[in-house]
Amino acid sequence: MNTVGNDIRITLWGSSHGSHIGCVLEGVRGGLELDTGRIAAEMSLRRPSPGIGTPRREDDEVLFLSGVTEGITNGDPISIMIANKDTRSKDYEQFRHRPRPGHADLTAIIRNPNHDIRGGGMFSGRMTAPLVAAGAVCRLGLEEQGVDVGAFTRGIGDVSDPQQRVLDDCRDSRSFDSRACNKELDERMVKAIMSASSEGDSLGGVVECQVENLPIGVGEPWFDTLDGELAKNMFSIPAMRAFEIGDGILSSRSRGSVMNDPFSLTGNEVFTTTNHHGGVLGGRSSGMPLVFRCFFKPTPSISKVQSTVDLESMKNVQLKIEGRHDPCIVPRAVAVVEAMTCHCIYDMMSRGGFLEN
Amino acid sequence: MNTVGNDIRITLWGSSHGSHIGCVLEGVRGGLELDTGRIAAEMSLRRPSPGIGTPRREDDEVLFLSGVTEGITNGDPISIMIANKDTRSKDYEQFRHRPRPGHADLTAIIRNPNHDIRGGGMFSGRMTAPLVAAGAVCRLGLEEQGVDVGAFTRGIGDVSDPQQRVLDDCRDSRSFDSRACNKELDERMVKAIMSASSEGDSLGGVVECQVENLPIGVGEPWFDTLDGELAKNMFSIPAMRAFEIGDGILSSRSRGSVMNDPFSLTGNEVFTTTNHHGGVLGGRSSGMPLVFRCFFKPTPSISKVQSTVDLESMKNVQLKIEGRHDPCIVPRAVAVVEAMTCHCIYDMMSRGGFLEN
Amino acid sequence: MNTVGNDIRITLWGSSHGSHIGCVLEGVRGGLELDTGRIAAEMSLRRPSPGIGTPRREDDEVLFLSGVTEGITNGDPISIMIANKDTRSKDYEQFRHRPRPGHADLTAIIRNPNHDIRGGGMFSGRMTAPLVAAGAVCRLGLEEQGVDVGAFTRGIGDVSDPQQRVLDDCRDSRSFDSRACNKELDERMVKAIMSASSEGDSLGGVVECQVENLPIGVGEPWFDTLDGELAKNMFSIPAMRAFEIGDGILSSRSRGSVMNDPFSLTGNEVFTTTNHHGGVLGGRSSGMPLVFRCFFKPTPSISKVQSTVDLESMKNVQLKIEGRHDPCIVPRAVAVVEAMTCHCIYDMMSRGGFLEN
Amino acid sequence: MNTVGNDIRITLWGSSHGSHIGCVLEGVRGGLELDTGRIAAEMSLRRPSPGIGTPRREDDEVLFLSGVTEGITNGDPISIMIANKDTRSKDYEQFRHRPRPGHADLTAIIRNPNHDIRGGGMFSGRMTAPLVAAGAVCRLGLEEQGVDVGAFTRGIGDVSDPQQRVLDDCRDSRSFDSRACNKELDERMVKAIMSASSEGDSLGGVVECQVENLPIGVGEPWFDTLDGELAKNMFSIPAMRAFEIGDGILSSRSRGSVMNDPFSLTGNEVFTTTNHHGGVLGGRSSGMPLVFRCFFKPTPSISKVQSTVDLESMKNVQLKIEGRHDPCIVPRAVAVVEAMTCHCIYDMMSRGGFLEN
Repeated sequence: MNTVGNDIRITLWGSSHGSHIGCVLEGVRGGLELDTGRIAAEMSLRRPSPGIGTPRREDDEVLFLSGVTEGITNGDPISIMIANKDTRSKDYEQFRHRPRPGHADLTAIIRNPNHDIRGGGMFSGRMTAPLVAAGAVCRLGLEEQGVDVGAFTRGIGDVSDPQQRVLDDCRDSRSFDSRACNKELDERMVKAIMSASSEGDSLGGVVECQVENLPIGVGEPWFDTLDGELAKNMFSIPAMRAFEIGDGILSSRSRGSVMNDPFSLTGNEVFTTTNHHGGVLGGRSSGMPLVFRCFFKPTPSISKVQSTVDLESMKNVQLKIEGRHDPCIVPRAVAVVEAMTCHCIYDMMSRGGFLEN
Repeated sequence: MNTVGNDIRITLWGSSHGSHIGCVLEGVRGGLELDTGRIAAEMSLRRPSPGIGTPRREDDEVLFLSGVTEGITNGDPISIMIANKDTRSKDYEQFRHRPRPGHADLTAIIRNPNHDIRGGGMFSGRMTAPLVAAGAVCRLGLEEQGVDVGAFTRGIGDVSDPQQRVLDDCRDSRSFDSRACNKELDERMVKAIMSASSEGDSLGGVVECQVENLPIGVGEPWFDTLDGELAKNMFSIPAMRAFEIGDGILSSRSRGSVMNDPFSLTGNEVFTTTNHHGGVLGGRSSGMPLVFRCFFKPTPSISKVQSTVDLESMKNVQLKIEGRHDPCIVPRAVAVVEAMTCHCIYDMMSRGGFLEN
Repeated sequence: MNTVGNDIRITLWGSSHGSHIGCVLEGVRGGLELDTGRIAAEMSLRRPSPGIGTPRREDDEVLFLSGVTEGITNGDPISIMIANKDTRSKDYEQFRHRPRPGHADLTAIIRNPNHDIRGGGMFSGRMTAPLVAAGAVCRLGLEEQGVDVGAFTRGIGDVSDPQQRVLDDCRDSRSFDSRACNKELDERMVKAIMSASSEGDSLGGVVECQVENLPIGVGEPWFDTLDGELAKNMFSIPAMRAFEIGDGILSSRSRGSVMNDPFSLTGNEVFTTTNHHGGVLGGRSSGMPLVFRCFFKPTPSISKVQSTVDLESMKNVQLKIEGRHDPCIVPRAVAVVEAMTCHCIYDMMSRGGFLEN
Repeated sequence: MNTVGNDIRITLWGSSHGSHIGCVLEGVRGGLELDTGRIAAEMSLRRPSPGIGTPRREDDEVLFLSGVTEGITNGDPISIMIANKDTRSKDYEQFRHRPRPGHADLTAIIRNPNHDIRGGGMFSGRMTAPLVAAGAVCRLGLEEQGVDVGAFTRGIGDVSDPQQRVLDDCRDSRSFDSRACNKELDERMVKAIMSASSEGDSLGGVVECQVENLPIGVGEPWFDTLDGELAKNMFSIPAMRAFEIGDGILSSRSRGSVMNDPFSLTGNEVFTTTNHHGGVLGGRSSGMPLVFRCFFKPTPSISKVQSTVDLESMKNVQLKIEGRHDPCIVPRAVAVVEAMTCHCIYDMMSRGGFLEN
């Protein structure tokens, strides 16, 4: 089933080159004021930046077909719809028997011979557009709980941001095409993307996400941990390949005396003096900022000639992919990571009985 | 809910120091011959190795209370029960108001004041014993599909295995206390553990898991991808902190022309000439070996004095943890990663209609 | 969540007077030819018959926004959308504080003050339109399994059809306004409805549904029995008040020697010589025709003056309901019972691994 | 899956003649005092009354293996286990190829050739014992919300209780073997059972259940209505054949002006002056007493000779069932209906956010 979440649930439908894409968002309480300007702002954060993204142009106007009365949520399921306007489907039919390396063509077609392969069908990054809209609604619900979510580009190719970052940095990153935290990093990242692109190649990268003001204890017991649910959600995003909470990778090479974050008090509030654990202990929020990283592989669509197979002639063949693609998906993925985090956190808070209104 | 899986489902119950722990395993077909010897072998793989594990000794005899008639599964839910015999609960009561750094004490107690804190209660690694038993049953189901699952220790502390490994190496690792793939690595890892242990400290590490002979296409569409479900499952294991599929982390710093694994034919069979993608494309199995890594933090229980808070006096205090603990959980986690992978793969194959009998 | 089904799943959205209503139908295999003429025929079966139904006129054109490529299902979620065109919302605002007797106004508003009360919002029978469309798709899936579903009006008010009926009778009923099985019953039922209507009153009635050619064994173990799932589904239909499988009510006053249907053989096929059990034994299909009955209360909307309360003034008041209503919902409910049965059976067959293609 | 409920969940395991039966009850809050005396009382209500029930004798001692610390729930899953002590399995093997009329033998064996047929396996009424234990725990949770649940025998064979009943009558019924509401009815019902029994026959009957003090609004939107969930739950009970909410059957022959229960005020409290609707409007609790009826068929196990088929010889044969059986299941079903209602209501209240503590 094409569904994610338990108490706040998204059911996704559509395909890259169908007439529309959309989702049904369930469980959002009535009485929430929908700020369409802010939803449009989130949508625009996901749109390709000129020069470093695909030339496909979609206005991504979000229609709310149900669940909203006069701009206020009414507690019913929220049906979200977005039109696909700028599609060019003719180039794709060959991938049905000549799967693109690094793509879902092979695994989709073998499982389902009727797979809609135009633009990658349901496996396309295009499907993340309604997720960003749904995430923007969830963000409104999180904000009334005081919970704040942000993300930024931690690295692209071999350009990596070495600094510790906070939520304010995430917000700053919105003004840079690469979603890096400052101008200097942005310039280096954009340059790296354009350099790869000019060679018909693509780049991977890392998105970091942070969540502040979570109450202590969000996360279900075995097996729906907060980090586990976040990881699963992030792996839905095309090209996601690794998930790290806090200093997870580093900690695997380290010692308990170094990685155990000591508890301390400020007034009556418990916190940890360091945050190697990234805000999750025992699968639940510790009250410290949530910090996690998503590692994305390079966009598999490159214009260099590649080797693949022809499933009709059963021969090895060479393939050159035409069409419009992002040489690096990471800057656009920042908006998707944020949106899916908003949804996941809102759902996990709801499941734990943390939502107050 | 304490449940994982859709079509093959585990519901877990018990606590570290309760009389019993167990789980209900649902969805396993009737007619499967339970090999109790092999189940015992999996259980023993999870037991602490002398010298580098906790001195707590449990025989972990697995009782099947239902779902099995004369050694054959009968299609009913399989109720699995294991006794806790070697428990010493007296030391734990203080952690109710003096949470151990790096542990779940704080997040458990804040959420549920009635939390059974003895031995960490339901957050204890002890809870993985019935999971290993359930995984062993699932493995029997996988084997009749020709699917093979193995894991080994890729690294402990700063000792790391630099070689590419295959399933045979995983099997070899069973004879080494550290679950490393060869004697030399084992000696270095054991030495690292004992060195940390002698200083009252602990170590993290990395478990790698491989799955061979998966058919193409296992993995559900949005949002239940194969890598996402595996990641979520692995994050249930205490101390898990990062999940990587294939060369996921490396790929984030690389180019498409390098990371796109070309398709090729051997006879009528499609494969990729390299396996950077770790066997998952578009959230589904590609037919190549599944390769993923789980990064574990150092055991938070160390005997060094640590800083924490006292929630009764609301003061910062020093804490020294007594009791019996593993200085490095990684060697024992290998069995748990294998078991949970067996369950997850079996479930995902069932969901996709891949099980034949 | 507004979802029904496990492997074949419907997520419903919209409200009586919103711009659109619709649903997402998941799990339908790719390769099924959508016969839009037949879907339109099912939709028209649900429309009010002139004279005995509401004067509200909707053309109920069904749009498939996803999941269908060139008239063939592609295995993706099928997004179904229908416009609401003939709405008159002005009369409803008063019911927010003056709940209509027999309606959902009170229970909806108390639970959710933002409830969209226009036309009853999401509690309206209007919501069954997308269900009929989804059921029509499921019926196509059932037909390729040889399974046949039909329903008819067993009784309206004190007019009751005393005959045993078979699927052919169900089909005949489609040509009669009341969905009775023959002209004589139809005339009596229509007369009863018009008589009640002329007095500003309404009538209840009984819909009977039959399913033929089910394989033996459809129905899950504890607790998702075939009869239980059907019952739950039917109780979603507004005004449903009782559910009977086979001769269930009669059997409660009878003896085992009378109600136990003996097994017998015709060639190699097992059947029962009588069908008191209505095709379900042990919560699973027995291979005999499924026969069940849904008892509907009279439409609560009547034009007679009724007593209710005013939740603002906190006084008992008299209420006269204006607007357009069906004096008897039963003839239209026949199409809904059929559609929801098609979905439920298709889902239960899928869950049990009975679908072949 | 053998699971019922969403937020309060029961997973059932075991079989009639296995060593144990049990269930895992999840979602019960920590801090609830388990009154073992009251749990034993519920268990004893389910036990056969001398003379009118099966001679099989089980003490039904309930073990709580987890989820309870020193008599108080601790918020973890509650693992419930009961031993089967008085089993005689030798008579059952023949039913594997000679299915008993009215039983689940045929539908179980055809679906699963490894079905444990001893005592009917998992289809046995014996499986309701752990459900009664789980329901008794849920009842404790309901009581702190002020919600009260009771049931009684409304009819057995042609003996029917014509009076309107309230919860006090339900409580009185506990002292009568037939669970009728008074001595005179009890005597007539017992006599009817013994008369049928003496002829080697069995009787059906009707259980009525009532729930008082439910808040307004319990019940989820499409499709998890309160009446629909109750119906589905009740259909899990072996021999259940029809479900009626309020005056559902009668209302199908009646008029809106008669069946619409008028709203009225007493002080600030809204109620209806009649309760034809049985406490459910729009699939949600109305605040009026919940009243529903479960119609049970006669026990299919009778000692009269019956016709069936032999699936080995493929011949029609005569069958005489030996063994120990209840000539009428209804008196014992009263406890099961109550227990499953307690669970269902507790779950639905939890899902709607109605639980306060």
